[in-house]
Amino acid sequence: MSTPNQTPLVDIQNSIDARNIAIDKVGVRGVKFPIVVLDRTNERQHTIGNFTLTVDLPHHFKGTHMSRFLEVLNENKGEMSIHALPNMLKALKERLTAERAHIEVSFPFFMVKKAPVTGKEGMMEFECGFIAESNGTDDFILAVKVPVATLCPCSKEISKYGAHNQRGLVTAKIRFRDMVWLEEVIEMIESSASCALFPVLKRPDEKWVTEHAYENPRFVEDMVREVALKFNADERITWYEIEVENFESIHAHNAYAYLERTK
Amino acid sequence: MSTPNQTPLVDIQNSIDARNIAIDKVGVRGVKFPIVVLDRTNERQHTIGNFTLTVDLPHHFKGTHMSRFLEVLNENKGEMSIHALPNMLKALKERLTAERAHIEVSFPFFMVKKAPVTGKEGMMEFECGFIAESNGTDDFILAVKVPVATLCPCSKEISKYGAHNQRGLVTAKIRFRDMVWLEEVIEMIESSASCALFPVLKRPDEKWVTEHAYENPRFVEDMVREVALKFNADERITWYEIEVENFESIHAHNAYAYLERTK
Amino acid sequence: MSTPNQTPLVDIQNSIDARNIAIDKVGVRGVKFPIVVLDRTNERQHTIGNFTLTVDLPHHFKGTHMSRFLEVLNENKGEMSIHALPNMLKALKERLTAERAHIEVSFPFFMVKKAPVTGKEGMMEFECGFIAESNGTDDFILAVKVPVATLCPCSKEISKYGAHNQRGLVTAKIRFRDMVWLEEVIEMIESSASCALFPVLKRPDEKWVTEHAYENPRFVEDMVREVALKFNADERITWYEIEVENFESIHAHNAYAYLERTK
Amino acid sequence: MSTPNQTPLVDIQNSIDARNIAIDKVGVRGVKFPIVVLDRTNERQHTIGNFTLTVDLPHHFKGTHMSRFLEVLNENKGEMSIHALPNMLKALKERLTAERAHIEVSFPFFMVKKAPVTGKEGMMEFECGFIAESNGTDDFILAVKVPVATLCPCSKEISKYGAHNQRGLVTAKIRFRDMVWLEEVIEMIESSASCALFPVLKRPDEKWVTEHAYENPRFVEDMVREVALKFNADERITWYEIEVENFESIHAHNAYAYLERTK
Repeated sequence: MSTPNQTPLVDIQNSIDARNIAIDKVGVRGVKFPIVVLDRTNERQHTIGNFTLTVDLPHHFKGTHMSRFLEVLNENKGEMSIHALPNMLKALKERLTAERAHIEVSFPFFMVKKAPVTGKEGMMEFECGFIAESNGTDDFILAVKVPVATLCPCSKEISKYGAHNQRGLVTAKIRFRDMVWLEEVIEMIESSASCALFPVLKRPDEKWVTEHAYENPRFVEDMVREVALKFNADERITWYEIEVENFESIHAHNAYAYLERTK
Repeated sequence: MSTPNQTPLVDIQNSIDARNIAIDKVGVRGVKFPIVVLDRTNERQHTIGNFTLTVDLPHHFKGTHMSRFLEVLNENKGEMSIHALPNMLKALKERLTAERAHIEVSFPFFMVKKAPVTGKEGMMEFECGFIAESNGTDDFILAVKVPVATLCPCSKEISKYGAHNQRGLVTAKIRFRDMVWLEEVIEMIESSASCALFPVLKRPDEKWVTEHAYENPRFVEDMVREVALKFNADERITWYEIEVENFESIHAHNAYAYLERTK
Repeated sequence: MSTPNQTPLVDIQNSIDARNIAIDKVGVRGVKFPIVVLDRTNERQHTIGNFTLTVDLPHHFKGTHMSRFLEVLNENKGEMSIHALPNMLKALKERLTAERAHIEVSFPFFMVKKAPVTGKEGMMEFECGFIAESNGTDDFILAVKVPVATLCPCSKEISKYGAHNQRGLVTAKIRFRDMVWLEEVIEMIESSASCALFPVLKRPDEKWVTEHAYENPRFVEDMVREVALKFNADERITWYEIEVENFESIHAHNAYAYLERTK
Repeated sequence: MSTPNQTPLVDIQNSIDARNIAIDKVGVRGVKFPIVVLDRTNERQHTIGNFTLTVDLPHHFKGTHMSRFLEVLNENKGEMSIHALPNMLKALKERLTAERAHIEVSFPFFMVKKAPVTGKEGMMEFECGFIAESNGTDDFILAVKVPVATLCPCSKEISKYGAHNQRGLVTAKIRFRDMVWLEEVIEMIESSASCALFPVLKRPDEKWVTEHAYENPRFVEDMVREVALKFNADERITWYEIEVENFESIHAHNAYAYLERTK
């Protein structure tokens, strides 16, 4: 480690830019940082965030100051919540002298899940995330990815026995007026599927999930509609986007459905 | 292989749906298919497409007919061009009885590139793509990803010698009124960078690219602006989106800039 | 483009290294190049290779000459076969003054597949590859990844109706004394599964694959054993490695089995 | 949730298998689980493991019992250390009635890093892992991935000014007779590079890292050799494997070197 430089170093980023082009977003991406998120059961859950942090850049500046994004992240010490994010947006705007700030973070989120018959417990991971933007007013989106089982209604109907089923992945994003827990969104999605997935299943559980899925066939079209019905019925939710991708067990490609609504 | 079933099988997808929820997009994703794309030099280039094909689904139908997407793909025999795509959109709408159809395809695209001094030739790959939508009128977007070298202006300015540089990835999407070749977009982007990348470089070439990059420092902010200037100057281009991600050689995270404009 | 440099440039790579450490493999990775592979039906198939090319480096040299790997690739013009690869290994050894050379290439490979009842045709992609090494004698490994359907024997046995099933991925590598086609290995693996996957399935086909999978339940353990039985019975095959990963439709994690044998 | 099944369900996995093929490894893969790892500074670090857990399966059993792998994981409550892993291997062998057990886990590991001049602190992530096997005796391998900066000695030598540099990724695996901290391996690798990477760099730091990299040029060949020299000099280390991949800033492909040694 050397001693600090004595003469001030030129601030190239701060110089005037003559190209007359404002930039919508500039910042850092792929920043990994340990975070704490709120959790309905234990209040706080340790996990790891993958961040994109950006601000706008007016046309007259040559560049932004990338190190300040990391400093803001450090100062927030990884507290991620719908309470902490507005402060972080504000700090980004102040430190970067910007009008708009944008935070995207995704993180693994764990829930304890019990097997449906034996009650055997295990941990299951869901990839969750927040998208927060300050542009005049603050905007906040909550995102979850929920793996589920889907059993094909057509295959069940036309076959003498059996029905093809597979793992599918539901990605949902919501805006809300009153706090919605990640766990609530996960449960709304799981209960819309042919069956939820479980970390630990003993034989009586496996019998139950097999029969439950067979009794509740779902196309990708059914999945997006069932989740949409639940989001429609929840008055806290004001906007949503639902995407379902089924890793079909009869094809090498996937079935896909997408729906976006402002309520 | 068994003999075909004699009694007609129920068409579950065609049954009435009472949930009253129309679906924005439903179809297939992750479909790999050999394709031929137009190429400025050789006219036709064999490559491999990764497709998402979707249509809208009115609220009164339970499901779409997934196999028909693949049939439409087969019937088009992999001819991918701004001429062939409107026909494919039309076929999707007809076969699926839909109002809207959407095709996304990405594919590796190769260009022969010569080393800047020795002229040594090699092949370089660019991930390209088309996004085509039919919704009343047809919409067509051309997409390219171009890896480039960027050398940091700040690092160059403040250091006694050297300057950190790295590989960056520029993703550009454009809409146009008159045909623009993929190769033209690639060249506009490469000429905006500190230096283009090359498949084969002998020592005189390596000297040239090293010095050329040092003489042309670029922040991610400069990259999006330089590309924007070129897109602004090209009257064929009516809309663009530019994204730059720098795999910084001084950080484990990336620098990022984004710009979107309707001209 | 500038004029070539007049004075010879120092060859740093060729200088003496005093650390006395030989390097097992040095070269280039992630090189994309258009290739042609042999195909049982059409003789030649255009595809795209992703290459790792390496040689050994004796302890007394500072570095290898990276551009020569690309030159050897260019000179072979993408002809990839068990006939062409020995020449390419030889060329690498000569051009890099090395004792050992190693080529790994993976590529998408397409087969036309017919639906089991209607005979509807479509294209299906398999990720294939070659591993070739010259180290005294030449060694050649053929690799294929085959997605299949697996239906759980336990779930079928214990449930009143239905049985969970899912997409699984079988990765096989073989050494052989007489030529084995990629298509043959793919067929040996598909016929070991609960059911093969298909690109296009109409309703009579979907009924057939659903019932066929139900009649042929397979654990991951069954999958590796069934494939092993077929490889054991084929006298051309002298060594194999089989890996199966099932994307379980009842869990968010995968079931896994692995087997390696010299015959 | 339904009531448990009254009649015992058949144990298909336990039935006799007549194919006479023992399986090397069978188990679960892609299991995410919150874990705690030992850390030189704070003693314990919360992170998230991605597990593959397997055992061997004798030829006479049809299948293994997948749920027991998850039960063993739950019972160990995520304590991952060279002390806890032997117990977990033992538990796997007992619960699965196996002769051999195998655990692979990778996890993000964070270190606080100070900028070289200003001392500004930030968190930096390294992908680390353990590979533990019980097969007669216990075997333990520690793995780390360390991103670094490399500056090309050839480019520096032949160019009037500048030198191409880039992010590289060093993957090292070691066996040892006396405990080696993850942090120690990371530091051995970082000090072998042209320069370490840092999460936060102010201008005086950026000047320092630019000049430091320029003063310490490294080919991928130099990187593996410099790390090998450090591993050779450490008497605790008995075996190692070193892999370096440079995301070249002059090419779209990567430079690569690999070395494996038993001391």
